[in-house]
Amino acid sequence: MKALVLERKGELKLRDIDLPLDVGVDDVKIAIDTVGVCGSDVHYYTHGAIGSFVVREPMVLGHEAAGTVTEVGAGVKHLRVGDRVCMEPGVPNMSSRASKLGIYNVDPDVRFWATPPVHGVLTPSVVHPAAFTYKLPDNVSFAEGAMVEPFAVGLQAATRAKITPGDVAVVIGCGPIGIMTALAALAGGCSKVLVSDLSAPKLNIAGQYSGITPVNIKETSLLDAISSVTDGWGADIVFEASGSPRAHQGIFDLLRPGGALVLVGLPVEPVAFDVPASIFKEARIETVFRYANNYDRAVNLIASGKVDLKPLITETFAFNDSIAAFERAAKGLPEDVKLQIRVSE
Amino acid sequence: MKALVLERKGELKLRDIDLPLDVGVDDVKIAIDTVGVCGSDVHYYTHGAIGSFVVREPMVLGHEAAGTVTEVGAGVKHLRVGDRVCMEPGVPNMSSRASKLGIYNVDPDVRFWATPPVHGVLTPSVVHPAAFTYKLPDNVSFAEGAMVEPFAVGLQAATRAKITPGDVAVVIGCGPIGIMTALAALAGGCSKVLVSDLSAPKLNIAGQYSGITPVNIKETSLLDAISSVTDGWGADIVFEASGSPRAHQGIFDLLRPGGALVLVGLPVEPVAFDVPASIFKEARIETVFRYANNYDRAVNLIASGKVDLKPLITETFAFNDSIAAFERAAKGLPEDVKLQIRVSE
Amino acid sequence: MKALVLERKGELKLRDIDLPLDVGVDDVKIAIDTVGVCGSDVHYYTHGAIGSFVVREPMVLGHEAAGTVTEVGAGVKHLRVGDRVCMEPGVPNMSSRASKLGIYNVDPDVRFWATPPVHGVLTPSVVHPAAFTYKLPDNVSFAEGAMVEPFAVGLQAATRAKITPGDVAVVIGCGPIGIMTALAALAGGCSKVLVSDLSAPKLNIAGQYSGITPVNIKETSLLDAISSVTDGWGADIVFEASGSPRAHQGIFDLLRPGGALVLVGLPVEPVAFDVPASIFKEARIETVFRYANNYDRAVNLIASGKVDLKPLITETFAFNDSIAAFERAAKGLPEDVKLQIRVSE
Amino acid sequence: MKALVLERKGELKLRDIDLPLDVGVDDVKIAIDTVGVCGSDVHYYTHGAIGSFVVREPMVLGHEAAGTVTEVGAGVKHLRVGDRVCMEPGVPNMSSRASKLGIYNVDPDVRFWATPPVHGVLTPSVVHPAAFTYKLPDNVSFAEGAMVEPFAVGLQAATRAKITPGDVAVVIGCGPIGIMTALAALAGGCSKVLVSDLSAPKLNIAGQYSGITPVNIKETSLLDAISSVTDGWGADIVFEASGSPRAHQGIFDLLRPGGALVLVGLPVEPVAFDVPASIFKEARIETVFRYANNYDRAVNLIASGKVDLKPLITETFAFNDSIAAFERAAKGLPEDVKLQIRVSE
Repeated sequence: MKALVLERKGELKLRDIDLPLDVGVDDVKIAIDTVGVCGSDVHYYTHGAIGSFVVREPMVLGHEAAGTVTEVGAGVKHLRVGDRVCMEPGVPNMSSRASKLGIYNVDPDVRFWATPPVHGVLTPSVVHPAAFTYKLPDNVSFAEGAMVEPFAVGLQAATRAKITPGDVAVVIGCGPIGIMTALAALAGGCSKVLVSDLSAPKLNIAGQYSGITPVNIKETSLLDAISSVTDGWGADIVFEASGSPRAHQGIFDLLRPGGALVLVGLPVEPVAFDVPASIFKEARIETVFRYANNYDRAVNLIASGKVDLKPLITETFAFNDSIAAFERAAKGLPEDVKLQIRVSE
Repeated sequence: MKALVLERKGELKLRDIDLPLDVGVDDVKIAIDTVGVCGSDVHYYTHGAIGSFVVREPMVLGHEAAGTVTEVGAGVKHLRVGDRVCMEPGVPNMSSRASKLGIYNVDPDVRFWATPPVHGVLTPSVVHPAAFTYKLPDNVSFAEGAMVEPFAVGLQAATRAKITPGDVAVVIGCGPIGIMTALAALAGGCSKVLVSDLSAPKLNIAGQYSGITPVNIKETSLLDAISSVTDGWGADIVFEASGSPRAHQGIFDLLRPGGALVLVGLPVEPVAFDVPASIFKEARIETVFRYANNYDRAVNLIASGKVDLKPLITETFAFNDSIAAFERAAKGLPEDVKLQIRVSE
Repeated sequence: MKALVLERKGELKLRDIDLPLDVGVDDVKIAIDTVGVCGSDVHYYTHGAIGSFVVREPMVLGHEAAGTVTEVGAGVKHLRVGDRVCMEPGVPNMSSRASKLGIYNVDPDVRFWATPPVHGVLTPSVVHPAAFTYKLPDNVSFAEGAMVEPFAVGLQAATRAKITPGDVAVVIGCGPIGIMTALAALAGGCSKVLVSDLSAPKLNIAGQYSGITPVNIKETSLLDAISSVTDGWGADIVFEASGSPRAHQGIFDLLRPGGALVLVGLPVEPVAFDVPASIFKEARIETVFRYANNYDRAVNLIASGKVDLKPLITETFAFNDSIAAFERAAKGLPEDVKLQIRVSE
Repeated sequence: MKALVLERKGELKLRDIDLPLDVGVDDVKIAIDTVGVCGSDVHYYTHGAIGSFVVREPMVLGHEAAGTVTEVGAGVKHLRVGDRVCMEPGVPNMSSRASKLGIYNVDPDVRFWATPPVHGVLTPSVVHPAAFTYKLPDNVSFAEGAMVEPFAVGLQAATRAKITPGDVAVVIGCGPIGIMTALAALAGGCSKVLVSDLSAPKLNIAGQYSGITPVNIKETSLLDAISSVTDGWGADIVFEASGSPRAHQGIFDLLRPGGALVLVGLPVEPVAFDVPASIFKEARIETVFRYANNYDRAVNLIASGKVDLKPLITETFAFNDSIAAFERAAKGLPEDVKLQIRVSE
């Protein structure tokens, strides 16, 4: 089967590769339609590793995918051949201690697409557990279906934030995950979301959405901006989605007493943490690792029109142009929120 | 001072009455602009009592109000003369055990406008604690400000529901509080809300809003409707806002396993409660008594455009026509969501 | 294999029966040591059914069990042959929607020991998924291990109550589940627990425990008792563990404003529910269906000495006297909290 | 009135000082019986400041106090002359935004005893709001009453941890607050608590309590200890009560997936925070600032016998020996958990 294979750091090939396609009793086979290019895919391409996950053998990339069911296992009840679907890329051991608790995302044995040594799905056909395959309503396109994965990260952040309806939030960082978090926070109950960044093009994209106020911290202090919006009280929730250690400086000043800080971004270096500042606010700090139990909610929010991800799809490439898509993504242009690859054509 | 006085059951007069207007150190004086007519005001008019609250002496009606600050006490910091404001009508003892816990709405000593023996605010000027007076942004009209009170009830329901972003909800009952609850649930994180009623005109009003699906239970089974939307799984949250004992029949069938039932409506008679049905779903049941700590959130949601209450204001009466407003409200026309009285003219 | 078989309503036999003993890759085989007699086992014996669960074919009874691992499947990591264990009797589909959420107890497809048509474990050897088999520390006896199941119900109640440390609780009903709930509430953070019943012998057993105050409602009003303990404020939590519809009369009067009612008991008839009383207190109502994710916690509480269940084991019968044990249990003597059967001898 | 006055850094005098003793309508006057010496009192004595709170004028020390009501304001309902009481030392503005939310401890305007410029209570008589004065049951001594304040900090930590009954916890740091936190965690629902420190005498004191396992990290790795207790899974909750930056190194390794870290200790320097480690565990982090709404719960836990603080009172000094008490406290002997001063004799 043809696939986009990362042979080693810096070397991509669109070539045939042997992939298992046995459909187990609880599995479905899916003809892949669209796959989004994620920062982590690009990072494996450019660096060959993310933390302790090192690409040691050729690996198919891609984990943000939507397609059509072409075969169903005997035990599958909620899906049929022909259903349009999107897929949760991480498959845990469902009998593990974490999974039993409902937090299967932190099961240490989870196998995640395009995370070494597990192959991704930039290939025409894959097999996946039906339990992690979600039907798309007619009014949700494959392109939107392939956006569910990154949106689910934002939705996990909004969920763990425990938003009280009407909360005012700040999102630090206007990359794809920052925007997803802002949209999820708005759809998830916030009244207003300030999004901060240094990049005007990124902020312009976020600023298209009603309810999002872009704050260019080259020009405006974020603390002043949130003070002005909240009459000096502070934000109910601050989402840190930049991964920049500098964003952590004075971060608790942005919060109201009793507010919540939600950590989404992954700084490479340890961050200087002002414990007394967190304590004097009696802040709650939540962290976000991928997502669990929210693909259905994500699909519902897109289908109902509360969340419109279409403006975030910057360009779509043909499967044969996959390598070009990755080269473009590797440039990290601020205008490029999401590049997608159409595998089905 | 002129006021709309309920002399006794069935008898309203627009007449002068002596009302205290001393501005304490932590108080503000407000020139009333607009007052909404609430079902409870009407019920005192038509029945002379609500439960154990009996009108024994002439009482000014009205508790859904917005106006302009005309005087501030020496200790008031967050308000100035000229500020446009809305007011929370219940004033608790802030040092009570309930208030210390943050649930001042259930302080047994709360004094609530137009609840005997406390006067309401259908009168040109009132004094109120600044702590329960909330500034309106420029883009929120007095008419909308006077809608904050009923919306706050819906918002309390949405808050106590502990919505997970993307939840699917049902609201039983499409009266003013049912609609407010549906709008708050949507703004508060639900992806879709089904609203059920027997009255087509009421459902038509609710159905104008994106995200609300009206269900006329004369024609469609609510259970079928929710099953169809959730693929047989059930609603994450059911809000009971009709106060009808019949709505409680089979109510847990509407819920998914582990779902929540939120009780907003007040049935006069005891309701037949199927405890095993609730237990087999391991349902959570929440109840809603007025509101606490959500006026600021309500104002934010209106100001940000996430919640548009303007279509719910059916007609506005001049202060001099207050009695006509009450006579109209007493008819309970299904098309009348909210009647308001403009006191300031 | 020999087993205690309920042939049909009212007829028990200790006889050979064919039971599957294949050990799957994620299973363990267990030599049963001790099995407790539960009210539900007895009810199947005396009535042939519980609700819609009807005994239509011979069924082995027993679901409160502890024993020793005698064989482990190839995929089992946390257990070894010789481990002393107790077992969670309900096995859900771990890939179901409810299980993914961590609430596998309400998975509609759960298979539960000694619930028709699933056999129980009053037999020398059983096979069970390792994921639902829990190791007993050396200082927890088999007899205590067989008490984990009923204690887990109490612990689920204490967990769903969301106890704030130091809460004052009431448990209505001093049967085995009432006592388990009281002990779990104490161990789970309550400072004091009042337990009410009409039966002096039952109350005497509960009253042995430090922290539990028995209230005989033949002699004392429960409302007066709780008022006296809380200076008129009311209980933080009321657990209804009697299943008596009469217990629901005035039940919200026992609660403080903002308190919680936890429903454990299963009344056969619908209960008259005073919705306004619940709303005026803005009460939260939780329900309890079996348990999920708490066997390990239950074992820890017993092992640490915080919960001592040994005084509740009234008498232990030999396996050959199983029928006598059930006849004794069917009498429902108030002094009999828990009868157990020693299968291993 | 005679009082223990901190004249300036390093200089204490037991001398007459003018203190306001007017009893307002909602106040009580209390004859002080016992006052505990807190680390913060000692720190003002030895350093003249804590953070931005600087002693600029003579200030009476002491904020852990119990005594007897000698006069009550006209509006006070729940207290009478002769009542034995303990007092919450922080008095917020009860109409502030934070107080309305129930988090009056983080009201920026809170006035706290013995925090400049507010006088403390090492003096025979004080006036205090009745709402922050709590009756002691007959079986709770004044000495225990004066321990409620430090215990309330531990109880706040246990409350914010959101313990699930049966949780296994670690407390890092075995100073007075570490021990209080461990006792509160146990009483609040934990099955076992490991307490770590470098000081054997401190650990010996904690180790007296059933349920607490002392871990001397000079000899044993805390990670190994928690792994051994939890079979490699990790602690449900880690309380950081040492305030040592080194305690933060690798702290998330101690937690189970989805576990909680509760920050009680105040490191002076910024701490190196490993954000990815927190995210991979999807940890929740809570912080603790003093306490709110738990004095009544603390008193209940002491009165019920669940928490025994008496062994922690190392020595009691006469009022005339107050300076000696502070000199002893300033030595920071590991055996000295709590020194108290008997003002009434």
